[in-house]
Amino acid sequence: MELTQALQQIQPSYIREILSDAQAEGVISLAGGLPDGNTFPIALMEQSLKSLPERPALFQYGHTAGFAPLLDYFREQYQLLENHQALVCTGSQQGLDLIARAFVNPGDKVVMEAPSYLGALQVFGLAQANVISVSQQADGPNLEELEACFANQAPKLFYAVPDFHNPTGVSWSLAVRHKVAQLCQQYGVTLVEDVPYRELRFKGEMLPLVSSFCPDQALVLRSYSKIAAPGMRMGVVTGKDEWIAPLIKVKQCADLHSSVPMQAVLLDLLRHPHFDQHIATLRSIYQERYQCLAEQLRAKLPQGCAFNEVEGGMFIWVTVPECDDFALAKAALKNKVAVVPSTVFYQQGEKITPALRLNFTNATVEELAEAVDRLVTVIKAECGVK
Amino acid sequence: MELTQALQQIQPSYIREILSDAQAEGVISLAGGLPDGNTFPIALMEQSLKSLPERPALFQYGHTAGFAPLLDYFREQYQLLENHQALVCTGSQQGLDLIARAFVNPGDKVVMEAPSYLGALQVFGLAQANVISVSQQADGPNLEELEACFANQAPKLFYAVPDFHNPTGVSWSLAVRHKVAQLCQQYGVTLVEDVPYRELRFKGEMLPLVSSFCPDQALVLRSYSKIAAPGMRMGVVTGKDEWIAPLIKVKQCADLHSSVPMQAVLLDLLRHPHFDQHIATLRSIYQERYQCLAEQLRAKLPQGCAFNEVEGGMFIWVTVPECDDFALAKAALKNKVAVVPSTVFYQQGEKITPALRLNFTNATVEELAEAVDRLVTVIKAECGVK
Repeated sequence: MELTQALQQIQPSYIREILSDAQAEGVISLAGGLPDGNTFPIALMEQSLKSLPERPALFQYGHTAGFAPLLDYFREQYQLLENHQALVCTGSQQGLDLIARAFVNPGDKVVMEAPSYLGALQVFGLAQANVISVSQQADGPNLEELEACFANQAPKLFYAVPDFHNPTGVSWSLAVRHKVAQLCQQYGVTLVEDVPYRELRFKGEMLPLVSSFCPDQALVLRSYSKIAAPGMRMGVVTGKDEWIAPLIKVKQCADLHSSVPMQAVLLDLLRHPHFDQHIATLRSIYQERYQCLAEQLRAKLPQGCAFNEVEGGMFIWVTVPECDDFALAKAALKNKVAVVPSTVFYQQGEKITPALRLNFTNATVEELAEAVDRLVTVIKAECGVK
Repeated sequence: MELTQALQQIQPSYIREILSDAQAEGVISLAGGLPDGNTFPIALMEQSLKSLPERPALFQYGHTAGFAPLLDYFREQYQLLENHQALVCTGSQQGLDLIARAFVNPGDKVVMEAPSYLGALQVFGLAQANVISVSQQADGPNLEELEACFANQAPKLFYAVPDFHNPTGVSWSLAVRHKVAQLCQQYGVTLVEDVPYRELRFKGEMLPLVSSFCPDQALVLRSYSKIAAPGMRMGVVTGKDEWIAPLIKVKQCADLHSSVPMQAVLLDLLRHPHFDQHIATLRSIYQERYQCLAEQLRAKLPQGCAFNEVEGGMFIWVTVPECDDFALAKAALKNKVAVVPSTVFYQQGEKITPALRLNFTNATVEELAEAVDRLVTVIKAECGVK
C-alpha cells in the first residue's frame, strides 16, 4: 500500500536509530533528551496513584479539552486571559501536531530558527509546510533576518523554543523577546512558543514568556515531561479561544482525549506542597552535571572546537572543525560515547554548522567526565586537530 | 488564523452537542456510546494501580510502538503471524487516524458501509478522502455493490465494523466475512477491521475476524474502552510489518508514544485470572438491558417503526417513518430522552434512512423502560403515527 506523499518525505529519525545503539553495553549516552529517571517525583505522586482505584469516574470517557479541574488549575496558574483557554494534550508533541493539522496547509510558510527541534521539523514536514529557517545567535534569532522574512514572505507561524533551545541551549534575551513579540504583531505572524525546558533554569533570572508580550498572537506549548515524568505523556497548549477550538476539533479525531487518570495524577502533583522543592532539587542536580560537563569541555576540547555556556535546559552544543558530523558521531559511538550530529537538526539540503549535541541530564558526573575523554579522542582523530 | 482546507470541511459533532444537553437534570440519555462506569474492572486493576509508585521505569520515555511486555502479550494473545506486529495507540481512535495519515492522500477512495461510525467519517474527512458508501444489509454490506465498487473504483481502503456495528448493531455473517476477505484480496483493497465491540457478544457464537481470512490484506483495530475502561485511552493496531512501520513513523510525530503507566496497568488487567469473568459479567449485564429495551420497543413502538435484533454490542437502530430525524431527536430531548438522529452517521448530502440510535449500556432497566415511553410519545406526535 503506497504511503501518503506527506509521509514519503519524512526521514527516519537518526536519533531513534542511534538511541538503540546507544543502549549497548558500556556506551555512555549523551545522545537522548531524557530526564534522569531517578529524579522523577514518584514519592510526590504516590498517594495520588494509590488513590486511583477509589476514583472510578476517572476511568470513563472524558472531555476532549481535558479534565475540568486540571483545566481550572491551568487557567489560574498560567493566568489565562478571559478570552483564552487550555487544551490538555498527549504530551506537548501532540499539541504541536494539532497546531500543524489545524492551521498549516501544504505549502504554508512556517519559520523556525536553524538548527531546530527535530520533532518540530518532523511535524511540519508531515504537514508539508514550507519551512523557512532564520539563523540563531547567542541571544535568540537574528532579528534582521526574521523581520525580512516576516515582511517578504508573510509566513503563517513562527515556531520557537526561547528557553534553553533544543539543540543549542540558547535562551533569548529580554530585548529579543520584546522585539519578536512586536514583529509577530506587526506582521500578523502567529508565535508558537514551545517551553518544555523553561523551569530547568539553574542560573540567572527567569524571563517573561515571549507570548506574554503578544498573548493574542501566540499559542503556548507546555510539557510536563521534564518536570514531572515523560512516560505519562502530559502537555498543554494555551491560546485564545478561537485558536484552541479548532485544535479541540482535530484532537477529537486524533485520540478523543488524553488519559484521564494521568491528568488527575498530574494535577495532584502540580498542587503538591513539595512540588516547588522537587523542581529546585532537579535544577541543582542538573546544574552540577552541567558544570561538570562544561568544565571538562573547557579543559579538554581540542583546537577549533567551541561550546556556548547555558543557564539551564538539558543540552550543550559543541561546534567542531569542518568535518562529516555523521561520521564523527558514528566514530564516537564506536568509542562508546553516543552524541547527536548537528545535521539531524537541519532541513535537508540546508547549510549546517558541524556540531554535536550533548545531553547532560541523564548521566552521572563520573560518566560525563569519561564521556568527554572518549569524545575528545575521536574528535582529534576524525578532524585531524590537536 | 485561517483553518486548513481539510479542517474547514469537518462538521462539528452533533453528538458532542447533544451530549451536553443530554446531561441536563432529568434527561435519560441513550445518546452516548458510553460503557456503564459501574462495570469498570477497577477491583481487578487495583493492585496494579497501587504498584505504580514501585515501578519508576514506567515513567520514563517509552518506545513509540508500545510497552514491550504488552506488545509480547498481544503477539501471543492475538496469534500474530511472523511478519506481523502490534502498535499500541492512544485509543483505537488514534489507530484509525494514524492509518488515514499514513495511507490516505486527499482524494484517495475509502469505502465504508452507510450508515457509518461518526469518528471514522471525521478521520477520513480530515484526510480529505473520497468516501464511497455501500449500503448495509442485515448480515453485512451489500456484496454486489461492494464488488462493483471494488472493481470499478479501485478504492485503497475498506473501513468496516463487522461485529455489532456502530450505529446499527449489525453483525456480519460468516459467509459475508469469507466473501469480503476474498474480494479484498482479489481487488487489492486493504481491509481496516475495527472491532471495539467484539467481546460484547451476549448471544450466538463469536465468528472469526474477517481479517483472519486475509491477514496480509488487513489492519485490525482493537479497543480496550469497552472491556477495560475508556478513560485510559488504550487501543492497538495490528497488521503486517511493512504497514505498521509507517504508522509508527506518524505516531512519533503525533504523540511520541502512549502513556506507559496506562499500558502497564492494561497488561496486568488483561493477564488477571478473573478478567474473563469480568467480561462474562459485562455481557450478562448488557444482555439484560438489551432484552429490556428490545421488549419495550416491541411492545410500544408505533406503526412504521422497526428495529433489528442484535446479538451484542451497545446499540439498537430504530427506523422511523419519513420525517426530519434531527427535529425528532430535538423533540425527544425536550421530552427528556436523548437519542442520536441517523443523519449524523451519513456523509453530507447522502440519502439517509430516518432512524434513531439507542444505546442500552449506560442506563438501568428502569430508565430504559421510561425512556421508551418518552420516545414513543414523541415519535407519535412528530411523525403523526399511532
